[in-house]
Amino acid sequence: MSEELPTGPTESPPAPRAAPREVWKKGGRLLSVLLALNVLLLACTLISGGAFNKVAVYDTDVFALLTTMMLLAVLWILFYLLRTVRCPDTDAVPYRDGHAGPIWLRGGLVLFGICTLIMDVFKIGYYSSSFECQSAIKILYPLTQAVFVIVQTYFLCISAKDCVHTHLDLTRCGLMFTLTTNLAIWMAAVADESVHQAHSLSSSHGNTSLQLHAPLSTVQRAGSPVGEDCSCDTAVCQIFQQGYYYLCPFNIEYSLFASTTLYVMWKNVGRLLASSTRGHSHTPSLLSHFRETFFAGPILGLMLFVVGLAVFIIYEVQASGERGRTQQALVIYYIFNIVCLGLMTLVSLSGSVIYRFDRRAMDHHKNPTRSLDMALLVGAALGQYAISYYSIVAAVAGTPRELLAGLSLAHALLVIAQHTFQNVFIIESLHRTPPGAEPHGTPPKEPCHGLTFASLDTLHTLPACPPTPRLVGPSPAGPQGAVSITLAPRGHWRCRCLKDISLFLLLCNIILWIMPAFGARPHFSNAVEVDFYGYSLWAAIVNICLPFGVFYRMHAVSSLLEVYMLS
Amino acid sequence: MSEELPTGPTESPPAPRAAPREVWKKGGRLLSVLLALNVLLLACTLISGGAFNKVAVYDTDVFALLTTMMLLAVLWILFYLLRTVRCPDTDAVPYRDGHAGPIWLRGGLVLFGICTLIMDVFKIGYYSSSFECQSAIKILYPLTQAVFVIVQTYFLCISAKDCVHTHLDLTRCGLMFTLTTNLAIWMAAVADESVHQAHSLSSSHGNTSLQLHAPLSTVQRAGSPVGEDCSCDTAVCQIFQQGYYYLCPFNIEYSLFASTTLYVMWKNVGRLLASSTRGHSHTPSLLSHFRETFFAGPILGLMLFVVGLAVFIIYEVQASGERGRTQQALVIYYIFNIVCLGLMTLVSLSGSVIYRFDRRAMDHHKNPTRSLDMALLVGAALGQYAISYYSIVAAVAGTPRELLAGLSLAHALLVIAQHTFQNVFIIESLHRTPPGAEPHGTPPKEPCHGLTFASLDTLHTLPACPPTPRLVGPSPAGPQGAVSITLAPRGHWRCRCLKDISLFLLLCNIILWIMPAFGARPHFSNAVEVDFYGYSLWAAIVNICLPFGVFYRMHAVSSLLEVYMLS
Repeated sequence: MSEELPTGPTESPPAPRAAPREVWKKGGRLLSVLLALNVLLLACTLISGGAFNKVAVYDTDVFALLTTMMLLAVLWILFYLLRTVRCPDTDAVPYRDGHAGPIWLRGGLVLFGICTLIMDVFKIGYYSSSFECQSAIKILYPLTQAVFVIVQTYFLCISAKDCVHTHLDLTRCGLMFTLTTNLAIWMAAVADESVHQAHSLSSSHGNTSLQLHAPLSTVQRAGSPVGEDCSCDTAVCQIFQQGYYYLCPFNIEYSLFASTTLYVMWKNVGRLLASSTRGHSHTPSLLSHFRETFFAGPILGLMLFVVGLAVFIIYEVQASGERGRTQQALVIYYIFNIVCLGLMTLVSLSGSVIYRFDRRAMDHHKNPTRSLDMALLVGAALGQYAISYYSIVAAVAGTPRELLAGLSLAHALLVIAQHTFQNVFIIESLHRTPPGAEPHGTPPKEPCHGLTFASLDTLHTLPACPPTPRLVGPSPAGPQGAVSITLAPRGHWRCRCLKDISLFLLLCNIILWIMPAFGARPHFSNAVEVDFYGYSLWAAIVNICLPFGVFYRMHAVSSLLEVYMLS
Repeated sequence: MSEELPTGPTESPPAPRAAPREVWKKGGRLLSVLLALNVLLLACTLISGGAFNKVAVYDTDVFALLTTMMLLAVLWILFYLLRTVRCPDTDAVPYRDGHAGPIWLRGGLVLFGICTLIMDVFKIGYYSSSFECQSAIKILYPLTQAVFVIVQTYFLCISAKDCVHTHLDLTRCGLMFTLTTNLAIWMAAVADESVHQAHSLSSSHGNTSLQLHAPLSTVQRAGSPVGEDCSCDTAVCQIFQQGYYYLCPFNIEYSLFASTTLYVMWKNVGRLLASSTRGHSHTPSLLSHFRETFFAGPILGLMLFVVGLAVFIIYEVQASGERGRTQQALVIYYIFNIVCLGLMTLVSLSGSVIYRFDRRAMDHHKNPTRSLDMALLVGAALGQYAISYYSIVAAVAGTPRELLAGLSLAHALLVIAQHTFQNVFIIESLHRTPPGAEPHGTPPKEPCHGLTFASLDTLHTLPACPPTPRLVGPSPAGPQGAVSITLAPRGHWRCRCLKDISLFLLLCNIILWIMPAFGARPHFSNAVEVDFYGYSLWAAIVNICLPFGVFYRMHAVSSLLEVYMLS
């Protein structure tokens, strides 16, 4: 996966000179986690307090907190960069984790970072056009964010693979604080989005007894025309405002991508790598990969993508119209989603079936990046699971049996099935050794193979190399062992199939990300759940759970890209 | 910690005959986690839907689901018991984890289980007294719960240490399903408590615009006098009802204790233990431990406990009275809590300072029980953290500066400090090797010491014993290494101090558990936060976060008992 070969010592076990005097790794981790939790909870309190109109927490409080956090994070990043540049490479960063910060993650960071910068320009323009009646912090905030995004993106692009070995506690705290800053920005952006969505929906829905989205709420006051004493009348101001809202999803994803990268860096602080990262020594280009597919997956995926875009535009245009057209738009939206989710479920399932015949060995090595990917896929799916279970209960227990209730029920069931089977497929794929990584059928050459990751004490307890190399393969008994490490060569029909499957799922996940990220909210247009739970309860459920669902789609895309490269 | 010595092979590395053909452990875990998440979300949906009065989910739906889950769990447990009894011990359960299910956890399970059984008797009595107007499921539910508690307690007492090695996937799914059942029962009980509390508070508070606790909500209908068409007029019925509510906290703790034990069993499925559990070979009795304290800790703790009980009773009597007396009761309550939390913070801090001088080695071995304890302590503290941060924001940003706002602010700040320092102290204590576990200053005797836990592939990659034994101690370099493994002998003043500290904290945590568990809710009597956030938002925050805070206290008690035994 890594383009750069690790620069540190790759073969020898770590020499005592580089070994830090870290008595107890968990202690340092505990301190940084406690710091992060406290800062995050303070930010969470202010942001959620600010999102409720009855509470006397103002948007300027939230902006002031976030600006301070970003400035502190920038200072720490600059300190880190200075330190690692000044020290010789092997002292501060003796090892680099080849799995961390793959090229597409860094590419995504740069892409989303650029979109965030454009958003900041729009924000500055919007606030400047009504400078006389706004607080200074509202212009300071996007300015600071721009600096923060530039510095952080540069930092993550060059340092994502670092396994830092100096100032361990300080580095852990700094990384956790930067991570917390990103999560706080994410929370603020999600609250902003929810308030904006709810406001535009309530104006069309005609419901006035709402608590979550009154016009005076925090970020709404900052970004919407109905400010306290400002109005956005000019055409330029309107453009700035619209552009700002359409670029918001990219800012949200940027914060989450940065958070995952920072988390992996935090896990890698003080880590010792005994051998170079195995496997992915030669990474063929995306194009040469593409020639190995059957083209069926990408073509079908592209068709669904284009149809999905059309459905999304129809939905967005019609859902704001009168009731009959909304109904029609909803039916189209649900039918497209049901077809798409059904196909994705079948395809994921067939991918898992292919793995039952594919006897490639499982990769048992410790890999913080992969463990995080697993946890995030399963954890983020909870958001959509929760919404689906609430929909199911509403559709089953609700009294009026009509078309939309049936469609909503089918949609919810398929969402659960699709998330489950896709997660199983992706996680199994990430744990397979890539074809061609091991020579066919021969036992592994390096005796130390099983020791990519080793904690300090284990390394010093164990000898450098065991005298009798054994099979690394999963089945310890002789006869089965021989079977399980026979590998399909690259270009085998199974590999091709898996590439097709991952590309198809990738394209489908992108279109399913676009729809909610850019404002489709069938949850509220559809009366089934709103009538059953009441508007405020249902709005709370959707506003809390949907951001995780949106993140799931984006994260699945990056994981599927990795599956596609590995197959 | 274990009274029983492991029965499996203790010295030899696992022989191939016992090694299961488990190709990929994470796959089996993933399946069981997905099953658990889906069942839990379904239960969560029904329970939370039932707690809202506007939603057409009835308590009978919730009871039916829970009864079905408990019956299925009982069937699985019986199947498991039959299987492990029929098979020879070494085949199904070749190893036993000495750290899992310590005696006080099993004792607590039995104690809380008995209280739950008494609660079920009260429940059955209560529902029987109004049998003609209740649904049959409401009597079936406590009956099933009684059977479930008896079977599960027996199962956990005899099987908590098992490392199962047959039917791995089935066992994982069964354990996860039983765990989910316990969590669902916990959620239902917490919702019941919250609804009951909120109902009794709103009747005294006179607030009518509440959503969370209308008289028609789920469990309220089941347990309160204002049922749909039943009334609880007779004295016997009233006694049953009161007794049922006072025993509810024990049922809540029982479910959580059972869940933690089941989680450790789940982590231990398929685990290979190479050597016997080290260290805790001789466990002196509680009494002989007690003689090693300075008596200052337990005496001061007992005094605080008694004063706390008195304060709690005064608060409970006066808080339901008129406004002036409520104010007085609140001031007394807050002052006691501030003094108690302040002392606890200082004592925890001094414990951590003692560890800075105590150069006992850290125990780096893998231990799922301890990892879970750490995660639960940090995770459950989040509940009180969140309430405290909301209180701080309300006290700082709220306009009226009066005595209660100041007390509330000081209380919230001390809660954060106390949780943080207590967690640091407990977690550091749990990671120290007990005094006397290693001979003073000599290098460890067993060369395989560092290999208590080993995954399948590592075991087969590594030789049985490294030819050159090295230091297990944390500092790999020679001179520091010699310093770090000098141990204080048992009975040293530092050990005595640590025992005093842990006993003092233990008693304080018990009184701080009793207060919220048995109904003290200063959060609502105090007007600071209610006025700032509005009743419904503040009720939602407290009702979601407080159960975690209550669980934190109980869990801290069990961890401190372990610290006391280990010091």
